[in-house]
Amino acid sequence: MFFWDCDYCEGADERILARLIETNRESLPGYGSDRYCESAKEKIRIACASADADVFFLTGGTQTNMTVISSLLSSYEGVLTAASGHIAVHEAGAIENRGHKVLELPQHDGKILPEELRAFLVSFHKNETKEHMVYPGLVYLSHPTEFGTLYTAAELSDLSLICREYEIPLYLDGARLGYGLAAAGTDVTLPILAKFCDVFYIGGTKVGALCGEAVVFPRGNAPRHFFTRIKQQGALLAKGRLVGIQFDTLFTDDLYLELGKHAVRMAEKLRDGLKKKGFTFYLSSPTNQQFLVVTRDELARIASLTTYSFWENLDEEHKVIRLATSWATKETDIDTFLAEI
Amino acid sequence: MFFWDCDYCEGADERILARLIETNRESLPGYGSDRYCESAKEKIRIACASADADVFFLTGGTQTNMTVISSLLSSYEGVLTAASGHIAVHEAGAIENRGHKVLELPQHDGKILPEELRAFLVSFHKNETKEHMVYPGLVYLSHPTEFGTLYTAAELSDLSLICREYEIPLYLDGARLGYGLAAAGTDVTLPILAKFCDVFYIGGTKVGALCGEAVVFPRGNAPRHFFTRIKQQGALLAKGRLVGIQFDTLFTDDLYLELGKHAVRMAEKLRDGLKKKGFTFYLSSPTNQQFLVVTRDELARIASLTTYSFWENLDEEHKVIRLATSWATKETDIDTFLAEI
Amino acid sequence: MFFWDCDYCEGADERILARLIETNRESLPGYGSDRYCESAKEKIRIACASADADVFFLTGGTQTNMTVISSLLSSYEGVLTAASGHIAVHEAGAIENRGHKVLELPQHDGKILPEELRAFLVSFHKNETKEHMVYPGLVYLSHPTEFGTLYTAAELSDLSLICREYEIPLYLDGARLGYGLAAAGTDVTLPILAKFCDVFYIGGTKVGALCGEAVVFPRGNAPRHFFTRIKQQGALLAKGRLVGIQFDTLFTDDLYLELGKHAVRMAEKLRDGLKKKGFTFYLSSPTNQQFLVVTRDELARIASLTTYSFWENLDEEHKVIRLATSWATKETDIDTFLAEI
Amino acid sequence: MFFWDCDYCEGADERILARLIETNRESLPGYGSDRYCESAKEKIRIACASADADVFFLTGGTQTNMTVISSLLSSYEGVLTAASGHIAVHEAGAIENRGHKVLELPQHDGKILPEELRAFLVSFHKNETKEHMVYPGLVYLSHPTEFGTLYTAAELSDLSLICREYEIPLYLDGARLGYGLAAAGTDVTLPILAKFCDVFYIGGTKVGALCGEAVVFPRGNAPRHFFTRIKQQGALLAKGRLVGIQFDTLFTDDLYLELGKHAVRMAEKLRDGLKKKGFTFYLSSPTNQQFLVVTRDELARIASLTTYSFWENLDEEHKVIRLATSWATKETDIDTFLAEI
Repeated sequence: MFFWDCDYCEGADERILARLIETNRESLPGYGSDRYCESAKEKIRIACASADADVFFLTGGTQTNMTVISSLLSSYEGVLTAASGHIAVHEAGAIENRGHKVLELPQHDGKILPEELRAFLVSFHKNETKEHMVYPGLVYLSHPTEFGTLYTAAELSDLSLICREYEIPLYLDGARLGYGLAAAGTDVTLPILAKFCDVFYIGGTKVGALCGEAVVFPRGNAPRHFFTRIKQQGALLAKGRLVGIQFDTLFTDDLYLELGKHAVRMAEKLRDGLKKKGFTFYLSSPTNQQFLVVTRDELARIASLTTYSFWENLDEEHKVIRLATSWATKETDIDTFLAEI
Repeated sequence: MFFWDCDYCEGADERILARLIETNRESLPGYGSDRYCESAKEKIRIACASADADVFFLTGGTQTNMTVISSLLSSYEGVLTAASGHIAVHEAGAIENRGHKVLELPQHDGKILPEELRAFLVSFHKNETKEHMVYPGLVYLSHPTEFGTLYTAAELSDLSLICREYEIPLYLDGARLGYGLAAAGTDVTLPILAKFCDVFYIGGTKVGALCGEAVVFPRGNAPRHFFTRIKQQGALLAKGRLVGIQFDTLFTDDLYLELGKHAVRMAEKLRDGLKKKGFTFYLSSPTNQQFLVVTRDELARIASLTTYSFWENLDEEHKVIRLATSWATKETDIDTFLAEI
Repeated sequence: MFFWDCDYCEGADERILARLIETNRESLPGYGSDRYCESAKEKIRIACASADADVFFLTGGTQTNMTVISSLLSSYEGVLTAASGHIAVHEAGAIENRGHKVLELPQHDGKILPEELRAFLVSFHKNETKEHMVYPGLVYLSHPTEFGTLYTAAELSDLSLICREYEIPLYLDGARLGYGLAAAGTDVTLPILAKFCDVFYIGGTKVGALCGEAVVFPRGNAPRHFFTRIKQQGALLAKGRLVGIQFDTLFTDDLYLELGKHAVRMAEKLRDGLKKKGFTFYLSSPTNQQFLVVTRDELARIASLTTYSFWENLDEEHKVIRLATSWATKETDIDTFLAEI
Repeated sequence: MFFWDCDYCEGADERILARLIETNRESLPGYGSDRYCESAKEKIRIACASADADVFFLTGGTQTNMTVISSLLSSYEGVLTAASGHIAVHEAGAIENRGHKVLELPQHDGKILPEELRAFLVSFHKNETKEHMVYPGLVYLSHPTEFGTLYTAAELSDLSLICREYEIPLYLDGARLGYGLAAAGTDVTLPILAKFCDVFYIGGTKVGALCGEAVVFPRGNAPRHFFTRIKQQGALLAKGRLVGIQFDTLFTDDLYLELGKHAVRMAEKLRDGLKKKGFTFYLSSPTNQQFLVVTRDELARIASLTTYSFWENLDEEHKVIRLATSWATKETDIDTFLAEI
């Protein structure tokens, strides 16, 4: 049985574990002020071509989203997102729990369209009753999206221009960023993100780490006392080294990208193999998440070989499911799966 | 110039003002513990045929919604509403500010359909990832709705049954309840509301009072320490008498219903007159809010005679506007308007 | 029986009621955009000698405190107050409900001392662990305090200087401001408040109005979208005229000050009379609240004539109680009381 | 240079790291539903002699406190704690950020006294204005306290009886619990905690783990949907295995207690050695935290050998500092320190 229902079924890349062991008995100061955190931050700044970037390490995705978003919004503001965005659906109301409305835009394979963002903002600011409404105060993107799709640099540029025109920050959730950066044909790089976003995070948990996300404010533009805000959200690790060492390793010798590339290659192999077998895909994803349209019979066959994520009922006879590869997927497993399906 | 853009353009029915003056120098205890509040509560209990009802007086609609809803929800729960519901659109995120997601159901002329409510709940509870989502914890209705429409007793019964099956309370926002109770053909009465709702409020501000809303928990089922919750939400008047005296007057000699009937009669006269003149209505409303579809020319004529509320652009050539009568609308003004339009 | 347990036992000054009646059938726009609100704001600006002041009308004291304080604080900040401050004790946790810690300073007859404020701030900023603590982000004063005492202009100046040095705003709760402005010997005036405070409110509820408080940002320094913040806190009246007309009346022909003076004169008469009878006072209050130290026998005599507020047990044999005069206190009642005690 | 300023300067016990490596490539379900989490929970239930206990794994102490406390309180309630409690001082207002006041009781070497708790509750419930105040809704203890001191079983029993009489839960913060359980002379065991507390947590981060705290509701009394509440607080790890495996190891072969005992033995050796050298202690702590009263000269000598935590200025000539041993402290370091001081 394979475990392809998600990309967080295994522990961490062994190089990370090795570094944890090597450094284990070093006595280091707490709360992320140790030398490994510093080193990791510097490597991330270099990778982002953003010498002035503020970098912070948190533990998980929902935690990062709620901390960043609540720090950037005033009480009368909400966050704009695709209706399929993680914050709108699968974070148990963490954003609302911190006082803010999640304002939904139409999603197109998980993405928002610049023209629809603009239309929303134009319409809002023309609305005579807007003073009785929630102000749009931030735009949230995920990249890759919840459907595995990617923005282009041109789309990010367009979204960024609109945000700057309306003076609202642009935030990108990179829980699976490694798989996005490694995708075939993408022109989005870390420096591109640093250029167009006001804040984004580089996901570790789903890309080879035990836990950990790196928040980047590329122009040294972190909100005041962001450290204290992290503490207040319960997001500050006493042993900050745990995440610092992991990111220091991920950003050494391009490990982060390497892990991403492996997962993408596995996904391509899986997708191409399934297509040859006649399977149909719900949409075209260049990253590690692949969405299939399956009949009951097809699903039974798949389920006999691997775990999967149920996505939705497409119609009476078809379901959409997700298979996810990861940094840990074994090529021999893909081969076996394709042989046996 | 008439002022029909809304139903809160004038002060209060003169019988209310008279009572305020008569009682003005009486020394009364604060915070709603005075004899007028007690009397008003008792009259409301009788009108609702709910001898055990808990009744509380608050000042305005948004305040009432945020206090009731936040008192009934656990932190992991959100409130279900029609997408057009006041709490979803025009309360500046007051519900989210108190930590809760507003979960939108499709709206049909401002109403939700029992079958769509049930479908949502069935789907939610079958969802394998529901533990990562906001739980539906309360159903919010407005009656009349934001479109002036009304539920039938049968619909309320259906909604109530579903709520009880899923053990979530049913809450009805009666900001304009007087105009609903007075509508032609309605079979919804205060005892009906008390039977099917777990909590509802009787709106004063828009139905003849200076301010004030009466929250009714019909089976003595107020949340623990609701008084303190009201205080914590800044919703407790030191001079509680101000609202108590108003509701005591409104529920003397059926004044509340009388005011409602007047407004509805004025709305019917306006509607029938405009229909004869060839105007088209966006939907059929039996209450004081009337929604017209107008061309630019028609709007210009209307605007020369009265204020109005812009609702939406229907298409390139037509807009939807709202005209609202109220307890204070003068019949001679309607006559003049219809003569001159 | 007299009702001197508090200063909100009667309705409103009759000149206010008269104006409500005169204007009752005028059709006015909602939400405080009517001409009476505008007129009242302008009169307040003049009285404060602050031509650029932003003025907003809310309904009650707790509501005003929670709206102002939550609008001025960042999430990592708390509000400094005397331990006896209303927000620390008697607002049911409204400040914490909006996410902020109430940081207590020692109280001295209800006041904070500039030197103790400075010491707190110095100590906080020297604290090596301050990044794990709540930052002081606002200073809250009440004037008169909960003990009826007053700051001097020099004290306000000192407090203001400290606040500006530390870049935190100074907020003054004037729930009973009329009684403070009218006190014998005070050198604090509205222009003085406007000079030294960043925001304060002029209390109406306890000084002759049915309800209503006027928030003043004297240098046009209201937080962005304060109107929407008011709405979000459930503090926006549809019929804003209700408070606007009251303040317009209170600030016509110095009515506000006149009401204050009456109450203070009644308090002086009561205090002097009781002193002559041998009663002891807990502290010296120049305003409408008087605090007596009473034995069980003395209390019994007082309780046979008037209601009172229990304050605290001083020792086994003595209690502290409060008697409050108001704009509505009758001089003949004072005479009767002093004759019969 | 030694690092004794805190007990989280090193990584994790090597047996934990070994287990992480052994299990690293196992494919496991996410969010704490894996077999290691189950195994760890079962071992904790056995250690607590609480077969029905609900056990949850979170990542850090502030996060655990805010999640547990906000789940147990109604909106009108606050949490009682010693004024020195971690939640009152060093959690950046996390409790208030979730809407609740922290109600302070006097601290005695970090502890609260049962008689003072009772006095507070008696006084609160006799207070005529209590409906305008924050209700005490939970009692928070830390054990060991922030001063390294411990409750006795009899004290916990007394506190528990009071809490049950007033129907408020008793919560114990065991961030350093391992050092408390291992202390000489203590009669508090895990089953004792399970008997007297309604919820407590077993701290991992400071007792040999990389991160992680285990929350125990000993009578299966977790609040409804506690999993979703954890998610909403950003406290749910996708790779729940990370904490599960650590606690599974800590509760195998009494490792948790063994680590505690080592630290306590090191603390005793350090304390006894320093006493012999003439150093004075601020209070008597039986656990890993030792508080010294030092002159400037003494501090200089200490600072030349180890890091330390500054606690407070005792008087003009004396400071209080903390030295903390841990599971990782080397005995040879203690020897060297005592020889050189």
